[in-house]
Amino acid sequence: MHNKFAKRACSIKSSDMRIILTAGERPELISFAGGLPAPELFPIEALKTASEAVLTEEGAASLQYSATEGYLPLRQAIAGRMEAIGIPATLDQLMITSGSQQAIDLTGRLLLDEGDTIICESPTYLAAINAFKTYDANFVEVEMDEDGMIMEILEKRLMENPHAKFIYTIPDFQNPSGRTLSLERRKRMIKLAKQYDMIILEDNPYGAIRFSGTPIPPIKQFDTDGRVIYLSTFSKIFAPGLRLGWICADTVFIEKYIGLKESADMHSDGFAQRLTAKYMEQNDIDAHIETIKEVYKERCAVMIDCIEQFFPKSVSFVKPEGGLFLWVELPESMDARKISLKLLESNVAVIPGAAFFAGNAQTNTLRLNFSNTPEERIKEGMKRMGEVLQRELNEDASTTEPMTL
Amino acid sequence: MHNKFAKRACSIKSSDMRIILTAGERPELISFAGGLPAPELFPIEALKTASEAVLTEEGAASLQYSATEGYLPLRQAIAGRMEAIGIPATLDQLMITSGSQQAIDLTGRLLLDEGDTIICESPTYLAAINAFKTYDANFVEVEMDEDGMIMEILEKRLMENPHAKFIYTIPDFQNPSGRTLSLERRKRMIKLAKQYDMIILEDNPYGAIRFSGTPIPPIKQFDTDGRVIYLSTFSKIFAPGLRLGWICADTVFIEKYIGLKESADMHSDGFAQRLTAKYMEQNDIDAHIETIKEVYKERCAVMIDCIEQFFPKSVSFVKPEGGLFLWVELPESMDARKISLKLLESNVAVIPGAAFFAGNAQTNTLRLNFSNTPEERIKEGMKRMGEVLQRELNEDASTTEPMTL
Repeated sequence: MHNKFAKRACSIKSSDMRIILTAGERPELISFAGGLPAPELFPIEALKTASEAVLTEEGAASLQYSATEGYLPLRQAIAGRMEAIGIPATLDQLMITSGSQQAIDLTGRLLLDEGDTIICESPTYLAAINAFKTYDANFVEVEMDEDGMIMEILEKRLMENPHAKFIYTIPDFQNPSGRTLSLERRKRMIKLAKQYDMIILEDNPYGAIRFSGTPIPPIKQFDTDGRVIYLSTFSKIFAPGLRLGWICADTVFIEKYIGLKESADMHSDGFAQRLTAKYMEQNDIDAHIETIKEVYKERCAVMIDCIEQFFPKSVSFVKPEGGLFLWVELPESMDARKISLKLLESNVAVIPGAAFFAGNAQTNTLRLNFSNTPEERIKEGMKRMGEVLQRELNEDASTTEPMTL
Repeated sequence: MHNKFAKRACSIKSSDMRIILTAGERPELISFAGGLPAPELFPIEALKTASEAVLTEEGAASLQYSATEGYLPLRQAIAGRMEAIGIPATLDQLMITSGSQQAIDLTGRLLLDEGDTIICESPTYLAAINAFKTYDANFVEVEMDEDGMIMEILEKRLMENPHAKFIYTIPDFQNPSGRTLSLERRKRMIKLAKQYDMIILEDNPYGAIRFSGTPIPPIKQFDTDGRVIYLSTFSKIFAPGLRLGWICADTVFIEKYIGLKESADMHSDGFAQRLTAKYMEQNDIDAHIETIKEVYKERCAVMIDCIEQFFPKSVSFVKPEGGLFLWVELPESMDARKISLKLLESNVAVIPGAAFFAGNAQTNTLRLNFSNTPEERIKEGMKRMGEVLQRELNEDASTTEPMTL
């Protein structure tokens, strides 16, 4: 048969993400590779109660086709959570999605024509790059420092790309870098977006998982003319398996998103939506999130201790105030992809940072996930990693430096 | 703010489907408009047991991120069901989707470049037309008779459109027409597809709901070189709210579908997948489907009786052997859209058939759903409909015919 694939599909192949999503199935492997929450914290008993209640009280409705924009009480609960972080939203400014991955994909579908430009952080979220690529987008990268995207570089990029479609940013505990955009820069980003008539896509899956430092308002809090599209999800604060996220945006966007979602998958799982709403009705999800934060804070601290104890001193890292990830920079001469293969031989999985760059990759970087691994295994994995890094560094030194006898 | 929408999004607006999906919320309305299964048949008690078992035995795994291609035991169960209808499929020829709507959408993403042509039935499934339109497809229609797509016309269209991407067909109890493609035509379609090197997209959500006549093998049973992509779903045999469908196709397609699904929504709800697999492990889903068929058979028979009893004799209809829909042709002079508005005044909802044509609409057609309404309400709704049609026909006659005194 003659090749019938669309252009966008020709380059599609199994991604690194699939390896990540299935790595957990090898029990001997200590994986810092995925972006998975701690499964032992999932509120399984509470979900049994919620499931029984949903099926008893509204079984048929939960199993029937339902509205594309999502289950009303769930959108009401989300509106309450948005209000609590300083984003008052009406119900017609909220749509439920099948995880925030679908929100990212639908945003590509909403805004991107072939060859359109996106301005994004360097590095940025791998699966967003992949989703936007299926809409034939170009990426213009903005370098970051410890306070997130650098505004002088953003302004330069905006001047150079006046027809860019939107700025894509993950402001809180960014995936992969763990960095947080400072308050001052958020205000500056909004100003620049207005000045250059740009949409901001604020992807915020981790904001609720702040375990140290002072909370910073979301960018959308400073949005006075509906140019910020805000995405979030239940994946990190509740259960990713249920695939529930949301979009909060001006109704002019939401109306279009609903039309696009309708042809994408009609609606998200109605039983999962009612289960989540019922869980929040019967339980204090904020208390649950506090537990998550305590555990992740401790795991992050253990991982940092291990870096300081086991890693060569020439390795640097970003200390996150929340989220799931720690970003490591190896000495410039080291190739993180090569290291990650050596680590697999020691049954430790990490993702080379290069995967997270839309353009110019920093090949000496690694992303480490701390949320999914208990402390003792973090220690063991980091110790093994330290040994591999020390060995590599010694070999590196012995081959690249002149012998001095 | 300047318009930033992608071309494909500019024409998007709330569709007739949304009206359908939310019509059920007005209790005084008798709706024949949707494509909803009978909610009173959902196996709610069995799902309580299954839910308790999934959360007890594999709670964490069901709530965690999981593989894009879907939960292995669910794919195994589907492979068994495919085998039973004469389609042996290996596990890597199966991918779970978020309803078969997502399978349709991903097929557009996989195969369609801007301006590509699809050969489809006239009429065809509304939400497939909408999904393919977001990929800027053109439609070439093939007229149908009581045995489905007419092969002589299909061959003519294939000759005229040698670069068409695929033939889209719903062979069993088609939505909206209720027609079934004959065995002889299925074999002929495969031959034509080979001759013109065409893919066939066989969309088969209703095949398991045959309540009279003799089963006809799916087109894919005659597929010798992997050119048939077969779609089906749990929506009509189990519960649409859970949004679970599947694609069965050659691995060369499935590998690409997995990559595309990964960026669309990562994976379908893992809890719903395990719930469905557990239900099938604990219960005989075929016995459940028998119950559905008995109820739909009776509802369809009642609807046909009512047409014969209450409708003008100039109205014709297609008698389906299964599925959810009955297709009505009014006298050519009548406008079904106008009739559907009059019907709403009598609290009866139907969909004008024109919505189901990708090109040349037959404006005197209506689609009636019989699965979602109990018999007494079918009788009441059809009686009201008969009155409206009789009245319209009389008015029509009195205004268009010369007075004879």
